[in-house]
Amino acid sequence: MDMKLNSLVSLATLLACALNAAAQTPTPTQAAQLEAARRNLMPVPASVQWGSGRLAVTNSFTVAATGHADERLRAGVDRAVRRLEGRTVMEFARGLTAEASAATLVVDCKGPGRAVPSVEEDESYTLDVTDKQATLRAPTVVGALRGLETFLQLLEGDREGFYLPAVHIEDRPRFPWRGLLIDIGRHYEPPEVLKRNLDAMAAVKLNVLHWHLTENQGFRIESKRFPRLAGMGSDGLYYTQEQARDIIAYAAARGIRVVPEFDLPGHSTSWLVGHPELGSAPGPYTIERGAGIFDPVLDPTREEVYKFLDAFLGEMAALFPDAYMHIGGDENNGRQWNANPKIQAFMREHGIKDNHALQTYFNQRLLKILQKHGKRMMGWDEIFQPDLPKDVVIHSWRGPKALAEAARLGYEGILSNGFYIDLIFPASAHYLNDPVPEGSTLTPTEAARVLGGEATMWGEWVSPETIDSRIWPRTAAIAERLWSPREVRDVEDMYRRLSVVSAQLEELGLTHEKNQAMMLRRLAGGRDSRALQTLASVVEPVKEYRRGEERPQTMLSPLTGLIDAARPDSEAARRFNAAVESLLSDAPRFESGARELRATLSEWQAAGPELEALIDGSPALAEARPLAADLSRTGTIGLEALSYIEKGVAPGAEWRDARLAALEEAAKPKAALEFPALPGVRALVFAASELPS
Amino acid sequence: MDMKLNSLVSLATLLACALNAAAQTPTPTQAAQLEAARRNLMPVPASVQWGSGRLAVTNSFTVAATGHADERLRAGVDRAVRRLEGRTVMEFARGLTAEASAATLVVDCKGPGRAVPSVEEDESYTLDVTDKQATLRAPTVVGALRGLETFLQLLEGDREGFYLPAVHIEDRPRFPWRGLLIDIGRHYEPPEVLKRNLDAMAAVKLNVLHWHLTENQGFRIESKRFPRLAGMGSDGLYYTQEQARDIIAYAAARGIRVVPEFDLPGHSTSWLVGHPELGSAPGPYTIERGAGIFDPVLDPTREEVYKFLDAFLGEMAALFPDAYMHIGGDENNGRQWNANPKIQAFMREHGIKDNHALQTYFNQRLLKILQKHGKRMMGWDEIFQPDLPKDVVIHSWRGPKALAEAARLGYEGILSNGFYIDLIFPASAHYLNDPVPEGSTLTPTEAARVLGGEATMWGEWVSPETIDSRIWPRTAAIAERLWSPREVRDVEDMYRRLSVVSAQLEELGLTHEKNQAMMLRRLAGGRDSRALQTLASVVEPVKEYRRGEERPQTMLSPLTGLIDAARPDSEAARRFNAAVESLLSDAPRFESGARELRATLSEWQAAGPELEALIDGSPALAEARPLAADLSRTGTIGLEALSYIEKGVAPGAEWRDARLAALEEAAKPKAALEFPALPGVRALVFAASELPS
Repeated sequence: MDMKLNSLVSLATLLACALNAAAQTPTPTQAAQLEAARRNLMPVPASVQWGSGRLAVTNSFTVAATGHADERLRAGVDRAVRRLEGRTVMEFARGLTAEASAATLVVDCKGPGRAVPSVEEDESYTLDVTDKQATLRAPTVVGALRGLETFLQLLEGDREGFYLPAVHIEDRPRFPWRGLLIDIGRHYEPPEVLKRNLDAMAAVKLNVLHWHLTENQGFRIESKRFPRLAGMGSDGLYYTQEQARDIIAYAAARGIRVVPEFDLPGHSTSWLVGHPELGSAPGPYTIERGAGIFDPVLDPTREEVYKFLDAFLGEMAALFPDAYMHIGGDENNGRQWNANPKIQAFMREHGIKDNHALQTYFNQRLLKILQKHGKRMMGWDEIFQPDLPKDVVIHSWRGPKALAEAARLGYEGILSNGFYIDLIFPASAHYLNDPVPEGSTLTPTEAARVLGGEATMWGEWVSPETIDSRIWPRTAAIAERLWSPREVRDVEDMYRRLSVVSAQLEELGLTHEKNQAMMLRRLAGGRDSRALQTLASVVEPVKEYRRGEERPQTMLSPLTGLIDAARPDSEAARRFNAAVESLLSDAPRFESGARELRATLSEWQAAGPELEALIDGSPALAEARPLAADLSRTGTIGLEALSYIEKGVAPGAEWRDARLAALEEAAKPKAALEFPALPGVRALVFAASELPS
Repeated sequence: MDMKLNSLVSLATLLACALNAAAQTPTPTQAAQLEAARRNLMPVPASVQWGSGRLAVTNSFTVAATGHADERLRAGVDRAVRRLEGRTVMEFARGLTAEASAATLVVDCKGPGRAVPSVEEDESYTLDVTDKQATLRAPTVVGALRGLETFLQLLEGDREGFYLPAVHIEDRPRFPWRGLLIDIGRHYEPPEVLKRNLDAMAAVKLNVLHWHLTENQGFRIESKRFPRLAGMGSDGLYYTQEQARDIIAYAAARGIRVVPEFDLPGHSTSWLVGHPELGSAPGPYTIERGAGIFDPVLDPTREEVYKFLDAFLGEMAALFPDAYMHIGGDENNGRQWNANPKIQAFMREHGIKDNHALQTYFNQRLLKILQKHGKRMMGWDEIFQPDLPKDVVIHSWRGPKALAEAARLGYEGILSNGFYIDLIFPASAHYLNDPVPEGSTLTPTEAARVLGGEATMWGEWVSPETIDSRIWPRTAAIAERLWSPREVRDVEDMYRRLSVVSAQLEELGLTHEKNQAMMLRRLAGGRDSRALQTLASVVEPVKEYRRGEERPQTMLSPLTGLIDAARPDSEAARRFNAAVESLLSDAPRFESGARELRATLSEWQAAGPELEALIDGSPALAEARPLAADLSRTGTIGLEALSYIEKGVAPGAEWRDARLAALEEAAKPKAALEFPALPGVRALVFAASELPS
């Protein structure tokens, strides 16, 4: 379900709140303490006590298991040790060693945990590192897997070699439902993309893949009962049941649940291509290629529809072992219902007063089908209404308030409002978004009904090449919100750790970092792309739903433009803005700070003309021409301001007004890209203007 | 089969020859002509006539098929058009258009060609581009696929937009067998790695994947008859028959044959793990983890062995549709035969005078088995001996001379000597290596028996992360040698085009460019890796088999060190050396040349201390510490020399001797890496020393 614009108000509030928090920079001493306290752990564990001493990691590294050790644990240990090998470039013994007393790491696992990954799984663990040995204790294999990820994050190195610092960690998640929704309806993603993202999820202790399997733009799962669903509704881009089982097993091996979503009764154009008889209008239907909200909707008044759904969802209930099934339920505009006299007659006959009530009728029928097949029903906010049984789970795109209301009435729910990563907001905007915020008036029992949250990777503008960069590393910040104690809220420290985690995710095959340079090389047609890299490092795609408005494309368009190469949450821009702030507030280090800023601003200034030459030979970059000019001009303005500041001489008001006007012009998105370093440049201009004249 | 050291003499000769050719720089006018003549086409077509005018590529781009159009052609057109979309960031119509007269590209294909890809396939095509339309004519679908790759390479852009220059191309390959051997025995590569490499092969018109499926270190193909082969001989890392069929189909869709190799009777440790009864010594056997030549060998004196091979190879003959089957036959050291009294008795009894004769006996038996299953036998040089029937194909690691001898005797053969890409020589060393070199005294009939050649990607030191960078882009130069006319031999122009092709290969998912930065980030532990990038850009792994000697590892060792991140054929070093040469020979442009060199040398100088700081926190980089010092020192020496040259003042002999000694020290490999930019720095030192004092 896409977030509607009216719900963006709360997101904008969150964003302001996050930026505000970011501005509350801790003092250097506080920062050093935080850094020591958290090192590179992400999500921050529930409790960490650093000790003294360190455990050396040498090529005699071994692992022993003293408790329960099944195939899932062995495979998890093996994956962890191979990653350790990759980082240390040392070869370690394969398999488990029998000599626990001599092992570097001892895993003591009490039992296998649930046979099928479950929201009720105990994911806790304790990890002790001394200068002799590391000991990981967990009640379940999943707990041990979570602890292994923490173990890997503890690895550090210095001139003496690799080591883990001595520590005692007791850890458990704050919320039991920590998910990532991947919409492969709008753009298909092959199994290997899902697998590498499952690895990344496990690395930051997420535990639910919400698999959004059907959309207007694609029906992506094979049905053996109804082969025309995927056969005609997917352009051939769907998962076979064998592939689905493989992905479910891959997830389970990492302690991750797979919750399938079959979005109904709207969002269903792709169902109707092969089965127009289910629709509320006669059809024929074709796969939707645009983005937005569309009319096609199942006909809730015909028994054949329920018979079909019973058979189809029964088949899916057998394929997907998770206890929950998501039925969507969002964004039905009701037009086809309004236009269909038979549906109108049915409503009159049954005293159904409006479309909302008709959808409730549909949901009630669907609920019975899911119950029959042993699944708990879950749906977006719209499905909520008071006569629903209490075991329905509400998935909230509306916000923590709606979630709290439902929790008060006895419903479990999860939060996605504020976690819409497709809207391209920075990690800081999501990080402080809390399913049960400070000051919540829910009783503990009510609060426990808020199960957690899910980041939502809606698929309008992502391809296998770009999806990782839209999910990572920002989703690691959301993972921390859902796992770590509520009090863990230091934005600057989050960013410090996020940068380390981002590099570590690459060892799992993630492409969020490395594909940018490749995409820029393609745009440059194989010519020198350094100036383009400079530009791409300081621009971000426009936020919310503006991309689709400013630069319309279809689901068949190539996602290979500069906007696709550009990434959310520009690290270069963030560093620049922080460097300006530090320069203007830290007189003793002014000189080195100014030198650094001058280098950056000169790079921008120089990149402009180089970019123009590159664009002359690369028509695919033509849309970026105004950005090249903006970048160059902004660099020049920053350098001018810096010169005034260094000389301690104020420029005239005319200079200031002209420069601010130019920056305002540069602040207008071009090619649906914006320039998040402008606040820093503007601050330099203001600082220059405020000098004594 | 690994190349023995004694055969490296000819490779060294080739290398010297290539460097010599590279030094014969064409004049600027010649260069401009060459550049215009070849644009970015690689391999260079048999005949190209540029016209005037251009065909615009706009968003109304369409393709029509006026002749034969089957599923393979349609899919090939679709892949080409999607790549064109990716480069142009424009959305084009899907499928073929019915209106040929209005289509941008018309494909006129006479027929489907062979049902199974064959060495006898007609791969020719003609391509005409006018300002109205492009027309691709081909007798077969494979010819059309080859032409589509040329079509894509013609795309250019300027301020007016994307276009193809007007041209008339008539093209056909010089050799019918243009292969890439991938050894997945020593290190397994998952199917997606093979698939992306098949795409890359198709892009440069290679047509044989030589799949080296069994090795001492791994038996990688499922046998349903003998499940213990892969089951016990592969650590679980093997291809199921379903996966093999999928890869064969993927290759066939691109006009690529898949020739399987089952290396026998040596190289067979992994066979013997599950079937020790086939061996010449009693066993037990374990999977080999080292690199080198090993003792295990099948027992050629026992009938059960032939019964087994008959059943196994029969199963494989049904799985692999290609007409050829490669049986290896190389590097049997004979020790197990010498040590086995029964084998010795058999030899006496049958008048078999030595191990070579015994292997010939084995080959004769194998030949009958392959003939029975309808396959032509192929093997390495060692299998060659005069009483073999003439339909056996010789695969030469010895060289063109051995190949010519066989051709004279009536045997077909292919060349791999000189195409051993695992030895880390630059593309220039392979490029001029010719299966039928100029001055060959073979008659046309004899020369026609030389079918072509294969680049060999032996798998000792490659992982899924690094294999692309060991194959590409260098293999594109070999592809050109095997496709283009013999006269196409301009090394500088090859490198110019290779750099464009290298970037284009990335659109197919190849990781040869993008994984380096990722691997360096991992080595840097998430810290700033720019200085490390500088170092990595100017070092190359040691050549030939020195890596295994200088930095011993096993097949289980992580391939994540600096040597793995470093790539063959450093472009930065080549550019540096060329810039020095140009500086020293081109007085008018001295100033800008000196500025550029100074920037590079200063970067090296500055990188040293930064690297040392990085290494302090990254023990995995400890082995690179001497390289950091070398880089810095070399930068300083170059800057000093440049200063003398600019001032026109000669330094004293003492300066020269000290600097040359330091460079000699830097020329010694460290961490099994070498510094190919040293010749340029040395040339600067000599040039400074030769100034009038």
